[in-house]
This record gives sequence, structure tokens and C-alpha cells, in this order.
Amino acid sequence: MTGFVSLVGAGPGDASLLTRAAAQRLRRADLVLYDALVSSDTLAIARRARRFSVGKRAGRPSMPQETIHRLMIRAARRGLKVVRLKGGDPFVFGRGGEEGLALRAAGIPFEVIPGVSSAVAAPALAGIPVTHRGITSAFTVVSGHSPDAYEPVFDALGPGTMTLVVMMGAASRRPIASALVARGWAASTPAALILAASREDAETWTGTLASLQRGDGPSDPQRPGTLVIGDVVKLRDALNIGDPATQPAAEAERGVV
Amino acid sequence: MTGFVSLVGAGPGDASLLTRAAAQRLRRADLVLYDALVSSDTLAIARRARRFSVGKRAGRPSMPQETIHRLMIRAARRGLKVVRLKGGDPFVFGRGGEEGLALRAAGIPFEVIPGVSSAVAAPALAGIPVTHRGITSAFTVVSGHSPDAYEPVFDALGPGTMTLVVMMGAASRRPIASALVARGWAASTPAALILAASREDAETWTGTLASLQRGDGPSDPQRPGTLVIGDVVKLRDALNIGDPATQPAAEAERGVV
Repeated sequence: MTGFVSLVGAGPGDASLLTRAAAQRLRRADLVLYDALVSSDTLAIARRARRFSVGKRAGRPSMPQETIHRLMIRAARRGLKVVRLKGGDPFVFGRGGEEGLALRAAGIPFEVIPGVSSAVAAPALAGIPVTHRGITSAFTVVSGHSPDAYEPVFDALGPGTMTLVVMMGAASRRPIASALVARGWAASTPAALILAASREDAETWTGTLASLQRGDGPSDPQRPGTLVIGDVVKLRDALNIGDPATQPAAEAERGVV
Repeated sequence: MTGFVSLVGAGPGDASLLTRAAAQRLRRADLVLYDALVSSDTLAIARRARRFSVGKRAGRPSMPQETIHRLMIRAARRGLKVVRLKGGDPFVFGRGGEEGLALRAAGIPFEVIPGVSSAVAAPALAGIPVTHRGITSAFTVVSGHSPDAYEPVFDALGPGTMTLVVMMGAASRRPIASALVARGWAASTPAALILAASREDAETWTGTLASLQRGDGPSDPQRPGTLVIGDVVKLRDALNIGDPATQPAAEAERGVV
């Protein structure tokens, strides 16, 4: 008797941005292995499951990737329905590919349930469309985790043509902005920093590459941060969707929720 | 009495990839204005709503954007809860920004509900992660709708560094592949064409930029097509998730659904 693993995207945080397929997999799960950024509301859907955090917590490093693979494989071999729950989408900087390859090598059946990626949803909830007619018809998404990840990408990217979304880029805003300006991006290019998109403690800051170079904007290692760089950031004021944090409350007042 | 407009992403097609927030807005909607690619299962959730297609149908052009704006504004002024339902995410080539600006100018309150974008989900459901450690740490998403949209982006993109996702690119596969090869992309670069991701009639073809230049791969103007170009396409065979179309059936057999 072999179980089954679902690699599931949890979306940016708020449980309402979970897909129906993801919620269904959580309700039926025996075991949930979840990342640091998954909300307690989302986890609560997995009523009958045992739940283990495998992400970074309170300064401690995350579990080694090989240990996560071993946990999934062992549980599936015991016949359990396992959900591997990841922030955003499992295949956008989520190591979903590596986990899928490990499951395939072990002969464990698995599926992928795509999720709402913060690459698009964090800007959207802050009132910033990543594409807009007359401004840009493309966007590039890159990890801000380390210069090894983003510098070769910046080398290959002509300045200013498309929207640039840097995930996990809040802590490195200074070197990221400097690397772009050094490659010909105008220091006056509009930029936004969105912390904890869709969560109650969401916060959006806007400025320019020049102000990012100075280290402006809120800093909080506890909240995931997404940088958006490009002229689409200017639409935020006109769209005036407001801080993501205020949205659910406003809807509740109107009786929409 | 003023109504309310929700700009809602429907995801790639299958109703299970709708977010819970989107399903909730549909259940309460008085009026749904939907695009051509939205599935009947998804529309059926809007039980009490009047539903109007505003997208392309049977060769007829889509409704002018200004007409869509006028319909939304008029309905909201009559106090209705309006859902503007878009394939994928409203802010990824969805004109969500334009619609939001029109609503703001008219003083109509609105919100944005992000959806699962086909830019990430179409490759994922075909077993292709858009990022993968050791292969690439970035992806660029561009519209294949017209050379005016993609050529300036290709000009600004160094060949081969990142995954390239071309949405609505199936019909223009030849000029798109040729434009890339002309800009230094290796003709041997792996490429995939995914039609109707998440739907029952989903189909995935893989080849190279060279074979795209020859026009290889299935053609079907009725099914939306996503091109994926880059070394991540090679992971499809190893991950072996299978054709998206077979996934729901396989799950049903296992009793997961």
C-alpha cells in the first residue's frame, strides 16, 4: 500500500487565496509538512492531519532538503496522504522540482497543485499590475536570495524594458538596487517594497532605485518582502487600492465577505 | 446605493484552481462579466448571477474595452455586486489595470482578487518548474500577442540565462522562435508548447527552438497556448507528471479527489 504526495502551493499567506484544490488536499491529508510562511488559518484546514514545520523558525535554519525528502517518502510508504505545503507556488523558488525528482526516484506517486505566486499577487494586492498596456508587456521574476542568483540575471537584462520582481529581496535592497544602477537602470526608476502581502501585517512602501540604494523603506526580517521595480509602480497611486492590510476590513464593512 | 466590483482571476481553467476568495465572490455576485477562457464549471458557481461573456467567441472579436468599463460602472451604480472574471490573474496581460483605473475614475469601489496565472501553472501542470536550482533562478513572462509586444523584450534579454514564458504565443511560434534565434538563443534550446493547461483537452508538446521555427507542434486556435523556452523543459521527462489532462483522472482512481 503506497500513499500519495501532493506538492501544494499555499499562495501568499491569507487562507482565502488558497485554491479549492489545495484546500481539498489539506482536508484529506494525514500529514502536512509546511514552510515557515504558511499561515495558521491555512494549516487549520488540515483538521485530521499531523502537521510539521520544516521551514526556518525563530532564527533556526530550515530542515535540510534531504531530510524533507526522506520524511515525505517514508510517510508515503506507510500509506499516508502527504501534503507538502509551500508558500506561493511550489515551482517558483520553492524547490518543488527537487522534491518531485526525489519522489519520482523513490517510486512515490505525486501531483503538483499550483498556487497563487507572490510574484504576481504581492504587487497586485498593493495596487501594482506587473503588466499594463502602454507601460510594459513583460515582467521578470528573480530571487534576491544571493548575488549569485540575481547578478547573472541582471547582466542579461537590458535596463528598464520590463517590470522586475525580486522575491526575498527586502534584506538585500541596497546591493540589488546598486547592481541595477551599475548596469544602466535609471536611479529614478520607481520601486516598491511589499512586506507580508495579503497578511494582516502587510505594508507597502514606494520610492525609487536611488532610495533603495540608501536603504530606505521598512525592514523586518520576520515578514517576507517582494521588490517591484519599473514604471508600473506609478499606477499604485492612481489605482489607489490601498494597503493590502486594509482590504479585507473594507470588504467586511460592505458586507462582501 | 453603490455596488461593488471585484476584478477576479479565474486561474488557468479548471474550477479547482480557483481561489476560495474567487469562489466566494462568485457565489454572492449579482452580475458576472467573463472572458472567453473561463470554464462552465467555474461560471456555475455564480448561481444567483446574471452572466455575460465579454470575450472573443466563435471568431467574433471581443467587446471593446470601453464597453466593458461602461457595463461594470452602470451595474455598480445600480447597486449590484459585479464580478469581472478573467482567465489566470487579472494583472497578467488581463487589462485589470485599465479596468481598475476606469472604476476609480468613476468613483466605483473595487477590489482585486489575484488568481493562479497560467504563466506558472501551465508549465507546472506539464511537469516543468519555471525555476530550478542549478538550472535557472529567474523567469521572464511576455505576451506573444504581437511582435510589437515581444520584440522589444527579446531585444533586452540576454540569450539563455532565464526561463522564458510566452503567453498567447502558440499561433506565432515561428516568428517568436526566429526572433530569439536571431538574437543569439541556441536553436537547440529546449521548448515546450502547452495547450489548454488544466483543462480536459490539455496537451503538451516538447521540442526545441529549431522545431518551433519549423512550425512543429499541435495547432488549435480554440485552445490557449503557452510557450516555455529554456533548459527547465528538460525536467519534464524526469518529473514525468504526465499530461495535465490525465492528472485529475489519475487522482480520482486513487480516491484523492
